[in-house]
Amino acid sequence: MKSNKKVSNAVIRRLPRYLRILEELDKQGEQRVSSRELGEKTGFTASQIRQDLNQFGGFGQQGYGYNVQGLKVEIENILGLVRDYRLVIIGLGRLGRAIANFNFVYNPSFPIVGMFDTNPEVIGTTINGVTVADVKTLPAFLEEHRIDIGVISVPKDDAEQVADTLAAGKVKGIWNFAPLDVPEVDGIPVENVHLSDGLQFLVYHIQQDER
Amino acid sequence: MKSNKKVSNAVIRRLPRYLRILEELDKQGEQRVSSRELGEKTGFTASQIRQDLNQFGGFGQQGYGYNVQGLKVEIENILGLVRDYRLVIIGLGRLGRAIANFNFVYNPSFPIVGMFDTNPEVIGTTINGVTVADVKTLPAFLEEHRIDIGVISVPKDDAEQVADTLAAGKVKGIWNFAPLDVPEVDGIPVENVHLSDGLQFLVYHIQQDER
Repeated sequence: MKSNKKVSNAVIRRLPRYLRILEELDKQGEQRVSSRELGEKTGFTASQIRQDLNQFGGFGQQGYGYNVQGLKVEIENILGLVRDYRLVIIGLGRLGRAIANFNFVYNPSFPIVGMFDTNPEVIGTTINGVTVADVKTLPAFLEEHRIDIGVISVPKDDAEQVADTLAAGKVKGIWNFAPLDVPEVDGIPVENVHLSDGLQFLVYHIQQDER
Repeated sequence: MKSNKKVSNAVIRRLPRYLRILEELDKQGEQRVSSRELGEKTGFTASQIRQDLNQFGGFGQQGYGYNVQGLKVEIENILGLVRDYRLVIIGLGRLGRAIANFNFVYNPSFPIVGMFDTNPEVIGTTINGVTVADVKTLPAFLEEHRIDIGVISVPKDDAEQVADTLAAGKVKGIWNFAPLDVPEVDGIPVENVHLSDGLQFLVYHIQQDER
């Protein structure tokens, strides 16, 4: 599997989308799917899809297409969705609360095992069964527990400091929702979420249609 | 500007990121920036950036770089961030509430002018100054008001029906947060947000680091 290292991020970014479609097809009881059908459902071209999936060894057969369940499992394996990943959320304001309530339930899942804030009115409250702790206790918590992913939903100016604390506590990845790009710390992968980027992309297309 | 039609979506998707960096630099009083610096801050290569920006006529000068404010304004123009876009939100559960509380404030901004739900306990409540109305009144509201963007944050099974209602009411774009891909209706652009895609991308990199 080491060869996956060479696969571009652009390809990896498309895999969750393939996976979503495959899960849907699997639920509907479909056994196989062609690259053309996958194309129609994902918005990518059939040749793009074949090219992407060929990079992992090619699971399709000419004239048959892909085995839905087989391809689903392969993509789960490639993405690493084969064990649970434990999350902590830092910052339980409006955004953090929303994140805490999203449905990450997956197979295997993403349990949220810790929540931290600075606000005395928020500390001690319980969200989805997890009691919010003082962020001062975060370093000790990270030392005691194996945490995979730290979710940052604090104000912009506090984000980098939180990232440093998470890195010092040896989390394996950072999922940042604060409205700035948190740089990688100690080589730990960071996924920066910018919802407004999608909004601006949408606006571009609205405006193009108006011209 | 019609020529923009030919610019690929991949390029357009990078523009909000450039814009974020340029706004930051502008706030810091920086007057110019090289493609190399932009590369360091965005994570793209300098040649990628030059190539992207050249597609719009090239605002840089050899040996000088880009004028920060000039490039910022150009990208705002390209993206269409030159007027306000009026939003309605359908579905004010946890996710919808979070969206209603995000900070979309931009120049020009994205005012949320209507909120709609089916839940009698939610209808009539006020979120950020907007009173949630019964979703049954949505068609009439869309007929009366010019709405640019419909935000969908209803459960998965209701999303397509809401999209149809929005399309019938002549919104210009749909920003979907329900966990499925809403297809384009009547050629109206749709931006499907899947937060878990980013999480899976992060997991891929965590797993790669572990190998």
